[in-house]
Amino acid sequence: MPVIAILTDFGQSEYLGIMKGVIFRHAPRAVVCDLYNEVDAQSVREGAWVLYTAYRHFPEGTVFLCVVDPGVGSDRQALAVRTQRYYFVGPDNGLMYPAMADDGIVEAVDLPVPPEASKTFHGRDVFAPAAAKLEAGAALAVLGRPTEVKVPLTFHLQGREGEIVRVDRFGNIITNLPHTGQDQYRVTVESYRRVLPFARTYAEAPRGQLFVIEGSSGTLEISLKNGSAWSVMDVPVGGRIVLE
Amino acid sequence: MPVIAILTDFGQSEYLGIMKGVIFRHAPRAVVCDLYNEVDAQSVREGAWVLYTAYRHFPEGTVFLCVVDPGVGSDRQALAVRTQRYYFVGPDNGLMYPAMADDGIVEAVDLPVPPEASKTFHGRDVFAPAAAKLEAGAALAVLGRPTEVKVPLTFHLQGREGEIVRVDRFGNIITNLPHTGQDQYRVTVESYRRVLPFARTYAEAPRGQLFVIEGSSGTLEISLKNGSAWSVMDVPVGGRIVLE
Amino acid sequence: MPVIAILTDFGQSEYLGIMKGVIFRHAPRAVVCDLYNEVDAQSVREGAWVLYTAYRHFPEGTVFLCVVDPGVGSDRQALAVRTQRYYFVGPDNGLMYPAMADDGIVEAVDLPVPPEASKTFHGRDVFAPAAAKLEAGAALAVLGRPTEVKVPLTFHLQGREGEIVRVDRFGNIITNLPHTGQDQYRVTVESYRRVLPFARTYAEAPRGQLFVIEGSSGTLEISLKNGSAWSVMDVPVGGRIVLE
Repeated sequence: MPVIAILTDFGQSEYLGIMKGVIFRHAPRAVVCDLYNEVDAQSVREGAWVLYTAYRHFPEGTVFLCVVDPGVGSDRQALAVRTQRYYFVGPDNGLMYPAMADDGIVEAVDLPVPPEASKTFHGRDVFAPAAAKLEAGAALAVLGRPTEVKVPLTFHLQGREGEIVRVDRFGNIITNLPHTGQDQYRVTVESYRRVLPFARTYAEAPRGQLFVIEGSSGTLEISLKNGSAWSVMDVPVGGRIVLE
Repeated sequence: MPVIAILTDFGQSEYLGIMKGVIFRHAPRAVVCDLYNEVDAQSVREGAWVLYTAYRHFPEGTVFLCVVDPGVGSDRQALAVRTQRYYFVGPDNGLMYPAMADDGIVEAVDLPVPPEASKTFHGRDVFAPAAAKLEAGAALAVLGRPTEVKVPLTFHLQGREGEIVRVDRFGNIITNLPHTGQDQYRVTVESYRRVLPFARTYAEAPRGQLFVIEGSSGTLEISLKNGSAWSVMDVPVGGRIVLE
Repeated sequence: MPVIAILTDFGQSEYLGIMKGVIFRHAPRAVVCDLYNEVDAQSVREGAWVLYTAYRHFPEGTVFLCVVDPGVGSDRQALAVRTQRYYFVGPDNGLMYPAMADDGIVEAVDLPVPPEASKTFHGRDVFAPAAAKLEAGAALAVLGRPTEVKVPLTFHLQGREGEIVRVDRFGNIITNLPHTGQDQYRVTVESYRRVLPFARTYAEAPRGQLFVIEGSSGTLEISLKNGSAWSVMDVPVGGRIVLE
């Protein structure tokens, strides 16, 4: 029996607990795991990055239940998708696209919205029941009619120009640029230009000075030891950045 | 085996983790689910509303372990209650009353407080063990002596005058008033009087303007697209509101 | 099958969710429980106190997966330890020491760091796999080579002089000093000297005035009814305090 891993912008709200209640109603012994529920409200892009970097660490067959859904109640599709090794359930708004494309999309269905469903909470009334049914062994084709994923989402990456994909709770500024093996980087972002040292570990990083480190997802981050890089270097999430 | 769903004002404190440890000591394979642990500190009323709107989404037989307990250590009763379809374990202070009354109270017992119990943490020493024993199949009558629920709690609702039952983390102002099908509402709360449009979905809601929407619990909420209605319209939780 | 209980300074970050994904990859039906993930960033001392007071409430055989790890990537040992009744997995930096010493250390191994492991996230690449393997029944000796725990950590306690071990989310100032049965205490901390009343319960505590209470861990706390003692009495965590 697979794990159901949840990614939302619900924070520690009761909406998360209610979704779990619905899951257990359909799949009483499901293993339910919070992947991340602190996505910035309605930030599809941040959610997409977190899911993309995290999904591969879960066991094969995991059902990812993903709800960052500013278009709830509109005509955006409600998806359940099978990829090479996983399942993804959530809105067709780009949120799940980078992870699904990376693993390889095999089959997608458009989940019907029951007439009694809330207009504001498809997580509870559409997505959680579908995820629970997949966990309990239902075939994808039973859940909806075949469809295509319609809304792609990609992160900018052209040579050494990438994107600030997020700022984490420690204030680390995370990019999608890989490490090249250099021992320092010239950083260009908006009007900011500076050379920062590269540190292999937090332990060896300099104190009181910004540095570049390879984050746990294998991309470069700008950090400040015992502090928040973002409080020093106020740059926009989603903005372009060059590390060369 | 039923789910144990937890509702507290503990936040992400270790008190929550410790309660789970105690549950697993009595019921090693229990399925434990956070319903909501961010109730405002000691706000019995907010907890009561969240529980009332959420409980019905959980599977039959769920044990709700509820600890918002400003009277801990006083002579308030410690309850375990069987309703038509569920179990509720927590203090007799109104917290569980609206949900229990809605489902129909069948049987209640007064849980004894062991002499070695902490004076400040009955969640750990009284309620968690009782919930775990119910999950493991104990009959209610084994847990304590028969009693009556003594402390009721109701939400004000008289015609179109209801109550602001809570403000959620998105700043939505949530009332207990049902939708009447109108396409606009005259809102009266304290000195505030204004006509606000009704939107069926967030997607179709106007930008930069307060609107009324039917929330996922089936009652009316005042919202602001991409913003916090509460930061614009600073009204007291628990206060009366008319939407007509 | 034992519980895996997690204590970190990750907050509600995706790093926590990713560690759980890794656990489920190695132990698909593991019962995973958040003990506490809001340790102040890199505060080994706070984490050590929480673990010390909480561990005994978990069932025998629980595997504590503990990651507050400012030295990640340095040459600090990565430990898996068997005590009289539990397992502990985490860095050798004092974090787990008070709990392990209290239960009685039986056997310790130094976990190897795989060459492909992230330099910044041993929680994912070293500690979570080890905890999952223990949960799945592996012997400690299989996980690494025998070693000694090298970094102790103790809390100051000499007569009636103890330590402010933490401030909880309610603003309670928690010490490691036991209750002596007095009905008032003379409090000395830095330049602050005052006699505060002792209250047996929050319910009987005075309003609008600091008081001393026996906390759920059996040590004395300074509290303020319906308020935060810490906002009134700004004292340093880790500082010495006399309650006599």
